[in-house]
Amino acid sequence: MMKLTLVKIGGHSLENKKDLHQFLIDFSRIEGVKILVHGGGKSATNLANKLGLNPTLIAGRRITDAQNLDIAIMTYAGLLNKNIVAGLQKNKCNAIGLTGADANTIESVKRPVKTIDYGFVGDVKKVNSRNIKALLLAGFTPVFCALTHDTNGQILNTNADTVASEIAIAMTEEFEVELLYCFELKGVLSDIKNRNSVIKELTTSVYRRFLKQGVISVGMLPKLENCFKALQQGVSVIKIGNTSMIGKGYDVFTKIIL
Amino acid sequence: MMKLTLVKIGGHSLENKKDLHQFLIDFSRIEGVKILVHGGGKSATNLANKLGLNPTLIAGRRITDAQNLDIAIMTYAGLLNKNIVAGLQKNKCNAIGLTGADANTIESVKRPVKTIDYGFVGDVKKVNSRNIKALLLAGFTPVFCALTHDTNGQILNTNADTVASEIAIAMTEEFEVELLYCFELKGVLSDIKNRNSVIKELTTSVYRRFLKQGVISVGMLPKLENCFKALQQGVSVIKIGNTSMIGKGYDVFTKIIL
Repeated sequence: MMKLTLVKIGGHSLENKKDLHQFLIDFSRIEGVKILVHGGGKSATNLANKLGLNPTLIAGRRITDAQNLDIAIMTYAGLLNKNIVAGLQKNKCNAIGLTGADANTIESVKRPVKTIDYGFVGDVKKVNSRNIKALLLAGFTPVFCALTHDTNGQILNTNADTVASEIAIAMTEEFEVELLYCFELKGVLSDIKNRNSVIKELTTSVYRRFLKQGVISVGMLPKLENCFKALQQGVSVIKIGNTSMIGKGYDVFTKIIL
Repeated sequence: MMKLTLVKIGGHSLENKKDLHQFLIDFSRIEGVKILVHGGGKSATNLANKLGLNPTLIAGRRITDAQNLDIAIMTYAGLLNKNIVAGLQKNKCNAIGLTGADANTIESVKRPVKTIDYGFVGDVKKVNSRNIKALLLAGFTPVFCALTHDTNGQILNTNADTVASEIAIAMTEEFEVELLYCFELKGVLSDIKNRNSVIKELTTSVYRRFLKQGVISVGMLPKLENCFKALQQGVSVIKIGNTSMIGKGYDVFTKIIL
């Protein structure tokens, strides 16, 4: 099977111009077919602040009302996505920026209201791997922001880590998929106060032990749950590490192993 | 040659939800391969107003400083483009939203400063028809907003009518192209005060006569110059009319003829 590299970039790396610049160079140099998924960083919050809106967070999740959805669409699909695409084009990577609505790539369902009404938030229902494959085979490099659609005209906000793992899983039908989560840290840390305490290999059993001990930071938990699910569903390799990880010769990162 | 229908929608039609809703239904029903180009309507001005920025216009052209470029990217490539794409997907049209940076479809050059510095405004240098054709043949319907790139990482603001005519011209290499300009009026008017004074057929000679008489409104002139250029360069049919023109059985519009 052909190899596919899927890179997710998020966090502060998106906001640091120098880091992002180097990342786009490194990403462009990855050989073979590849996909980029990016988060939103603080762009939506920044625009909301300028407009005098207060974003609401419950349990670390943004509550997406109609105004905040518009802001997410403007910043994720607009400002961030298009500047990343233009930056990749500069590096001769034939990028094409997408939401899940574009080419009907990612269908989602508006999250049902139980105790919390998340608003316009979508849980991924189906990734149309055939449409993504058509873009790859036509020579394009898809660049996804974390927006999906309900196929009934509604754009929905979706967690970027989840978008990355769901695309990775869907693409295993046709590709050998390597999934790389890039952010500002060097990997999953065993001591949150020590940025060099990178866990080199994180297996399910080690994860369970760390979980009991409360070693792993709360923010990291959904990301890791996504990773183990993706490995179980056929993704070949998953690494979590610094944005510089995709450059040549950088070998500090956390490898996730079943 | 295969037929390609290229529709440009702009003006108030983008802001009227009911008109836009019907337009997206009608556009989805157009048979064969097709492309949509949309303008920005008042969306950028609205966002600029909310942010307390004053857009500067010189000779009817928006001066695009860095802040206004960000606003254009957020509203044209984000809010407008993605909601149009989601609306087309609802109607089973497999739309894919693009700027000229995406798939390197439209390369432009930052307009040189002569008497006026237009800022981040791009004049089209090259439409990569091969990349657009690849998307069409893969079964997608490209939806362009009026942004291009300089291939050096810079997004540029470009007139939407020009984007439409330049794409139409480039696609004549491989397709028989019909170009439809849709807006809120019924066509080119011989009396600006009478919305029913539609010129049915506008030839170059009639155009020159009306031009001398000052009959045609100033806002219409660049659009018509684009039309005659496109016809000279191989576009088969050009019509200007109301957004409802693309629906079945509607026959009031201006046909542009060399």
